[in-house]
Amino acid sequence: MTDSTPSGPRARAYEIVLSAVERDIATGRLRVGDRLPGERDFAAQLGVSRPSVREAVRALEAMGVVRAAVGQGTDGGTIVIPGSSTALTRLLRLHIGLSTFPMPDAIDARVMLERWSCRLAAQEATPEELDLLRETLASMRRPDISHAEFNDLDTRFHVQIADAGHNRLVADMTTAIRDAMHWWIMQSFAQRDDWDDLVIELRAGHEAVFESIEAHRPAEAAERVEAHIRSSYALLHWTRGTD
Amino acid sequence: MTDSTPSGPRARAYEIVLSAVERDIATGRLRVGDRLPGERDFAAQLGVSRPSVREAVRALEAMGVVRAAVGQGTDGGTIVIPGSSTALTRLLRLHIGLSTFPMPDAIDARVMLERWSCRLAAQEATPEELDLLRETLASMRRPDISHAEFNDLDTRFHVQIADAGHNRLVADMTTAIRDAMHWWIMQSFAQRDDWDDLVIELRAGHEAVFESIEAHRPAEAAERVEAHIRSSYALLHWTRGTD
Repeated sequence: MTDSTPSGPRARAYEIVLSAVERDIATGRLRVGDRLPGERDFAAQLGVSRPSVREAVRALEAMGVVRAAVGQGTDGGTIVIPGSSTALTRLLRLHIGLSTFPMPDAIDARVMLERWSCRLAAQEATPEELDLLRETLASMRRPDISHAEFNDLDTRFHVQIADAGHNRLVADMTTAIRDAMHWWIMQSFAQRDDWDDLVIELRAGHEAVFESIEAHRPAEAAERVEAHIRSSYALLHWTRGTD
Repeated sequence: MTDSTPSGPRARAYEIVLSAVERDIATGRLRVGDRLPGERDFAAQLGVSRPSVREAVRALEAMGVVRAAVGQGTDGGTIVIPGSSTALTRLLRLHIGLSTFPMPDAIDARVMLERWSCRLAAQEATPEELDLLRETLASMRRPDISHAEFNDLDTRFHVQIADAGHNRLVADMTTAIRDAMHWWIMQSFAQRDDWDDLVIELRAGHEAVFESIEAHRPAEAAERVEAHIRSSYALLHWTRGTD
């Protein structure tokens, strides 16, 4: 059962598989829609065990790069997929959770990303994209809204702006950072007894940002989103979860 | 051998493990330095197989969140580690390689990140950090420099600026995007016969950026790095690798 230990030769073998796939993607030999060799063949080709191949495939799956097709068993069926932002979100959420990146750095990075997105959105948002933002703001005005619903809509508002900026990488990074903070924002909400006042302030911040985007005033939109983000964290008395 | 298929119940079981770890990190129950339960216990606790646990641990390892300690075998020994940027770099490199993010988006994102870093570096760089930048520029002036050496120093220059901005998340994202483009930049270099002229232009761009940072002129540093990045891609006749 040496094969089942989570370290040693197996760890190195797993790195060999990962590196081989990385190299093939970097050089364009492996593209979206291509299949990896079957587990048996791939293992033989690289001189590693089949479990090592399987673990590397799992890691690539977690990174959103491949998907194991159903029911293919030993003949492979692992396909390179058009990546989604889910993997980036998950990775940043984990790392922000572990404070790989200190919270003030994450907040500043968020300001940078959202200033950029707002500027682009003010220049490029389509009427349909403006409508989506309007709908989100309308939902946030519901008087009976719960903390969780408000937080979800808040996230949605920021993600819709990022989407309206039409840069997928910037939008995904924005989403990932906002999403990574979801839990702590909910914690902060739960600890407050002045929820109604807080919501009034947060809503006003959103409305101001939207006004600038709608009026195609990029510089003003950037200033307003920065003011909104910084004052939100101040309002939430930002601290790490103490649980 | 149903257990060895890369999909089906096992895929779901592996997600269960991943989600459990994610939740514990998000809520702060699992912190840097903590150990995951041993493979056997963890599997029993979550009602999944041991191979499922092992695969999830590999995925977490690939995301730079845990490290399997050597020689612990069935008793666990998987430790939550202070994350490194390597995982983020790898993930972005894979996704840019697969065009999850179109190259123009990646270039614009790079401009955004480096404008921000240059502005911060012009305000905050220490004398030691300025010395490091000076050394890198001096090395780039070596007349016999190879394409690969030049590209490595070019990357180093941009990473040193990002580091001098003192925001770890922004620095890591900058590094990851620059690194993800390494292979295509090398391809572009290789396809050119006017290497000497190209190097003169790239060097001038770097020197101009450094001058603004050294003189503590943030707005000018931001403008100059954007001009440098955009003209570099134009100079390299940016196209995706055709291999």
